[in-house]
Amino acid sequence: MRRINRVCQLLGIEYPIIMGGMSWAGTPKLAAAVSNAGGLGIIGSGPMKAEHLKKAIDEIKTLTDKPFGVNIILVSPYADELVDVVIEEKVPVVTFGAGNPSKYTAKLKEAGIKVIPVVASENMAKMMERIGADAVIAEGMESGGHIGEVTTIVLVNAVCRAVSIPVIAAGGIADGRAMAAMFALGAEGIQMGTRFIATYEADTHENFKKLIIKSGIRDTVVTGATLGHPARVIETKFAKKIRELEVENLQQAEELLVGSLRKAVVDGNVDEGSFMAGQCVGLISEIKHVEEVIKDIMKEFDMAVERLNQEHAKLKNAMSEVNEYVK
Amino acid sequence: MRRINRVCQLLGIEYPIIMGGMSWAGTPKLAAAVSNAGGLGIIGSGPMKAEHLKKAIDEIKTLTDKPFGVNIILVSPYADELVDVVIEEKVPVVTFGAGNPSKYTAKLKEAGIKVIPVVASENMAKMMERIGADAVIAEGMESGGHIGEVTTIVLVNAVCRAVSIPVIAAGGIADGRAMAAMFALGAEGIQMGTRFIATYEADTHENFKKLIIKSGIRDTVVTGATLGHPARVIETKFAKKIRELEVENLQQAEELLVGSLRKAVVDGNVDEGSFMAGQCVGLISEIKHVEEVIKDIMKEFDMAVERLNQEHAKLKNAMSEVNEYVK
Repeated sequence: MRRINRVCQLLGIEYPIIMGGMSWAGTPKLAAAVSNAGGLGIIGSGPMKAEHLKKAIDEIKTLTDKPFGVNIILVSPYADELVDVVIEEKVPVVTFGAGNPSKYTAKLKEAGIKVIPVVASENMAKMMERIGADAVIAEGMESGGHIGEVTTIVLVNAVCRAVSIPVIAAGGIADGRAMAAMFALGAEGIQMGTRFIATYEADTHENFKKLIIKSGIRDTVVTGATLGHPARVIETKFAKKIRELEVENLQQAEELLVGSLRKAVVDGNVDEGSFMAGQCVGLISEIKHVEEVIKDIMKEFDMAVERLNQEHAKLKNAMSEVNEYVK
Repeated sequence: MRRINRVCQLLGIEYPIIMGGMSWAGTPKLAAAVSNAGGLGIIGSGPMKAEHLKKAIDEIKTLTDKPFGVNIILVSPYADELVDVVIEEKVPVVTFGAGNPSKYTAKLKEAGIKVIPVVASENMAKMMERIGADAVIAEGMESGGHIGEVTTIVLVNAVCRAVSIPVIAAGGIADGRAMAAMFALGAEGIQMGTRFIATYEADTHENFKKLIIKSGIRDTVVTGATLGHPARVIETKFAKKIRELEVENLQQAEELLVGSLRKAVVDGNVDEGSFMAGQCVGLISEIKHVEEVIKDIMKEFDMAVERLNQEHAKLKNAMSEVNEYVK
């Protein structure tokens, strides 16, 4: 029997590439494009109430026949209702933002919905495996938006060692080299957010896309850390101001942050918007079509594996000595 | 002609694994053990004057016939003299801490010494290539000790795309899976610090080694960021106190940090020491002999490449569609 990648099998998709849960940017149109291109598109329900999510699901169903998912943020005041909507609408997959989705897992599973939480530690990953998660997303702190403290290479490594369910790697991934690197650590899928914003199919404002293209790997900063909700954003004047206010006037920083993601994604407001994006902005130099993004990544993944094998072969003599070594 | 790994060829070593530049912990004994095991041992000249380095080099020459290196920190007030010592002593390799070693490169190269600077951006990597560096070390912010802001997976990816000289990956690497991941990104060698401290051959105090073994991936923090010299350390009570003082009393934080690395490495002083270590502490669960560390990494590298090939094969059907895709 032909073996198939477990993430593809689990989700009924062609390429083990899933879209990050993105508030405002995770629209039905973009999610449908990812699903139609063979990945798993994800509607970001972050700012939505039940009725908005219902409408978004109706919309994506007109745009794709392929599997798609919904991301639910556990701190949403509407989380209970949103979970009910995905069950009613028979959404194939739910990803959860960081936190503990235990209270929802059983009823989602009963409804035949795949449950994939984001985890920030190997212990949380083990717990999620125990309560029946189908896979976990290990997301490093180089990712855009709300982040933890551990970087992708360390977190993915630790999580892959801790659980048997498939691990989907996220954070700092925008190309096929990084995909190959994550698979070398033991991941069986990747999640990307920023890379999908820089596409023609993204409804995200042009100003946001332009900022991604022109930013380097050192051009993101973390805002909100002192407020207890650290988020990685592109370093605009606004982001610098927020960081200053976090030292001088926390209250004002908090006030300015409210609604700032919407201002970035929807309005392209460079003076008042939080342009949430990962460090991989520095690896993204071109707006592409979603299909091109996915196919290019798979091609590059292929090339990276090939190059790794060549480099591995160059160490063959050394390896033969290693294999003779007895502890 | 048999092709050989470029880092091994450049440095005359068997495995492309080099020791991080570590003040106090980078002793001749540990460096000799790494060189004798087929890697490249590095004497950390951080706190040394010329006479100390001369003595350390004399010592390592009695302990190994293999190539070794010296790490020089560019902010050292003795940097000029230290460079003169390595030239006089015909040390085979010099690695530099982050910064711009341009003023030393020409005379080191004339003396036949390999020059390998640490870089924190792809632009710095390009500049180092231009001035004749033999390789660069791309070190992510998950590493122990003094750090930048970009994580390993993003930095190594960007640097590998920017230069043609070999790239040595550092930061968060303690095992063969991570080595394979770095090679998938295009690196041709790895550098490790923390993993070599947790060995029998390290002269580092037992308390330090114990802290590494018991710490998890989330147990490091960054101190000194507000003082302009961020360093990753294990989160002890002392580290927490420093972080509080960085908000309340910068002057006192600075005073307490002076000499704190020595107190950790040499004295094992858990109340006043800075236990500099990378996030990979959470992936290190055992004190090993240096030879065992290196051989285990190479074995695991081998296994990781094998597993990656298996996973790659599972995506073969999907790949054939990709290859038919024309942009």
